[in-house]
Amino acid sequence: MSFQIPRGTQDILPGEIEKWQLIEEKAKEICRRYNYHEIRTPIFEHTELFQRGVGDSTDIVQKEMYTFKDRGDRSLTLRPEGTASVVRSFVQNKMFGNPQQPTKLYYIGPMFRYERPQKGRMRQFVQFGIEALGSNDPAIDAEVMALAMELYKELGLKHLKLIINSLGDTDSRIAHREALVEHFRPVVEELCEDCQSRIETNPLRILDCKKDRNHPKMESAPSILDYLNDSSREYFEQVKAFLEELNVPYVVDPTLVRGLDYYNHTAFEIMSEAPGFGAITTLSGGGRYNGLVEEIGGPETPGIGFAMSLERFLVALEAEQIELPLEQGIDCYVVSLGEGPKKYSMSILKQLRKAGLTADRDYQDKKMKAQFKAADRLQAKFVLVLGEDELAKEVINVKDMATGEQVEVPLSEAKDYIMKRLEGGTAS
Amino acid sequence: MSFQIPRGTQDILPGEIEKWQLIEEKAKEICRRYNYHEIRTPIFEHTELFQRGVGDSTDIVQKEMYTFKDRGDRSLTLRPEGTASVVRSFVQNKMFGNPQQPTKLYYIGPMFRYERPQKGRMRQFVQFGIEALGSNDPAIDAEVMALAMELYKELGLKHLKLIINSLGDTDSRIAHREALVEHFRPVVEELCEDCQSRIETNPLRILDCKKDRNHPKMESAPSILDYLNDSSREYFEQVKAFLEELNVPYVVDPTLVRGLDYYNHTAFEIMSEAPGFGAITTLSGGGRYNGLVEEIGGPETPGIGFAMSLERFLVALEAEQIELPLEQGIDCYVVSLGEGPKKYSMSILKQLRKAGLTADRDYQDKKMKAQFKAADRLQAKFVLVLGEDELAKEVINVKDMATGEQVEVPLSEAKDYIMKRLEGGTAS
Repeated sequence: MSFQIPRGTQDILPGEIEKWQLIEEKAKEICRRYNYHEIRTPIFEHTELFQRGVGDSTDIVQKEMYTFKDRGDRSLTLRPEGTASVVRSFVQNKMFGNPQQPTKLYYIGPMFRYERPQKGRMRQFVQFGIEALGSNDPAIDAEVMALAMELYKELGLKHLKLIINSLGDTDSRIAHREALVEHFRPVVEELCEDCQSRIETNPLRILDCKKDRNHPKMESAPSILDYLNDSSREYFEQVKAFLEELNVPYVVDPTLVRGLDYYNHTAFEIMSEAPGFGAITTLSGGGRYNGLVEEIGGPETPGIGFAMSLERFLVALEAEQIELPLEQGIDCYVVSLGEGPKKYSMSILKQLRKAGLTADRDYQDKKMKAQFKAADRLQAKFVLVLGEDELAKEVINVKDMATGEQVEVPLSEAKDYIMKRLEGGTAS
Repeated sequence: MSFQIPRGTQDILPGEIEKWQLIEEKAKEICRRYNYHEIRTPIFEHTELFQRGVGDSTDIVQKEMYTFKDRGDRSLTLRPEGTASVVRSFVQNKMFGNPQQPTKLYYIGPMFRYERPQKGRMRQFVQFGIEALGSNDPAIDAEVMALAMELYKELGLKHLKLIINSLGDTDSRIAHREALVEHFRPVVEELCEDCQSRIETNPLRILDCKKDRNHPKMESAPSILDYLNDSSREYFEQVKAFLEELNVPYVVDPTLVRGLDYYNHTAFEIMSEAPGFGAITTLSGGGRYNGLVEEIGGPETPGIGFAMSLERFLVALEAEQIELPLEQGIDCYVVSLGEGPKKYSMSILKQLRKAGLTADRDYQDKKMKAQFKAADRLQAKFVLVLGEDELAKEVINVKDMATGEQVEVPLSEAKDYIMKRLEGGTAS
């Protein structure tokens, strides 16, 4: 009997995992510099959290969640995104009571959406995201966008486009909503079924519809930017000014809406403009969600964040043909011959590893030649050879694979000898 | 409406997360030295994988799995442990065909078991584990145990006990099994219900029963060590010899069985002997599982591995009152006053962060005094003060919080000044 991985999921294996590790380390490193701290929430939550926190009218909640009953008959759902869980945790753990605000958090981990798998879109995918809770300063909107851009850029991406929009505050949104309804009502029959119900539930999302995007009334639809009240317009102006201060180029697109229900004010997406990137060009997206914390049961608290898919990040790196700087090869491989040397080789490994070196040996009872071949495959910088003779003389043969140079050193000095050679830059 | 985290799961928040990060980094670092590479498998697998790979007769499969149907009516299960998934991936990805063997892998990630939550036991918990597939060398059994011990010891644990046993090869197990059945058959009615069925399915696990552990026939039960055939005994002797070579102390306990069905030859557990550790003293366990790869549909391939719970690791650190060396405090906090300075402060942050420093500012429009307070709370090493006057003169005030010393430096030199001070060891 053989077993297959579930559809839409993937194994990440040595040879590929190093790229993921590098992106994640870089993300964590940038968060450290920006003073965002990691939070981990469970893989599943009570289903109602996402119904409330992502929005009942979204595709995610309606079509894409992995929902199931546990043995205690609770309805649980594998998290489809990170924000609702972070906000739940912020409220439940009363983080709003900490003296230091805003609360600046990041997360990296698997998310789950039951979608049709395609390149850059898996049913289990990894998101890195940040959330800043407790600030209404337009500077932090700019900081959040700058952090996302910085991560892409530090790993080498060049063909990036930051698109921003303002969805305004509640008053602005209501005024715009009325204008949208008025605009689309006369032609509502010509729109798709989803949009016919969206005109009642969330007319803004008509602008986001893939089916109706070529409808003649789409281009002339009222722009949110014409409905921003003074304070919303002023807020947006300041966000833009801070982006300019930070030298982060952006494009304003008044049709940018975002799939989730809870956004207001700043909304943004980062797209790849690399040629040959493929159909889904959005690398990450985010925005301001003042009101969500109250929705989840907490006190009035503004918030902003973004999330990016690591799968898409990797597709973008590939599209731009960027080779990540991955470490290759081990430091030491110990070749041993005969019972005594085989046993003693474990002590040598122990010393080398203790000193921080990557060290390995044969575990398949191979002949000398095959052991050397393994050392080659592992791209060992040094090969240490120990036979019965060497062991009797308490020496070991050290071969520098870069230069071919071979030296006999006392067993007790082998580790120090290699450390010195590596520091000297001969082979490291 | 307010939302609670699902029972048996936890949020890991800033203040606590740093310990997890440190343990994980250390685990990864030690794996690098031992030349084990990370593998990531999905959070869920087809249910049959665990029925086959963990064992139908185990508590895990019978009582503790989170099993559900996806929208395509497939039966999926949140992984209750790591080995079955790694072996599935090894087979599906034909890793047995790689020229370099054994395949040395590690994983870190959440696992799920529906158990009664208690200290050190959660329904979602994190396991770190390694698997070495493709070697029958007793040296690798010792390496696997040494790696586990090393991780605990490098983070400061002292009260550790490594318990080992051999379950022998198939022939030895059959002989022992017959002796066990013969031994317990006359008193089978006195044993618990589970053991009454275990005598048919897996009599070895009677030795592991918590209910029957004081039954008079338990102490006199036939020891597996008396039923090892010559090759199994020789293998065990070599494993012990390699442990001695590596200076890893161990205790042989012939009653050590392990809950999973698939072990043979080497079985081991690492226990905490710290006073006040609590009821569950097993920190990690593992063993050899020759035969599992074939069970999952692959070619005959020996294997050995271990898994440890990070939750238990943290409980053990706490029981031994070990303070992990966690970094505290940010490098720079920028205090700014007035519109111009507030805006320009973002440029300063950008420079400092670009240089690798942790830097932050106020995002709540706070007065100067409150900004200084925030700098204190964040344990900033340097506070940079920028007012309208300073901005006009293109200077900034840098205060070293360790010494109280305050210096006015040109804006364009602020970053370099702080870098130099930090390198000088004044405040780092």
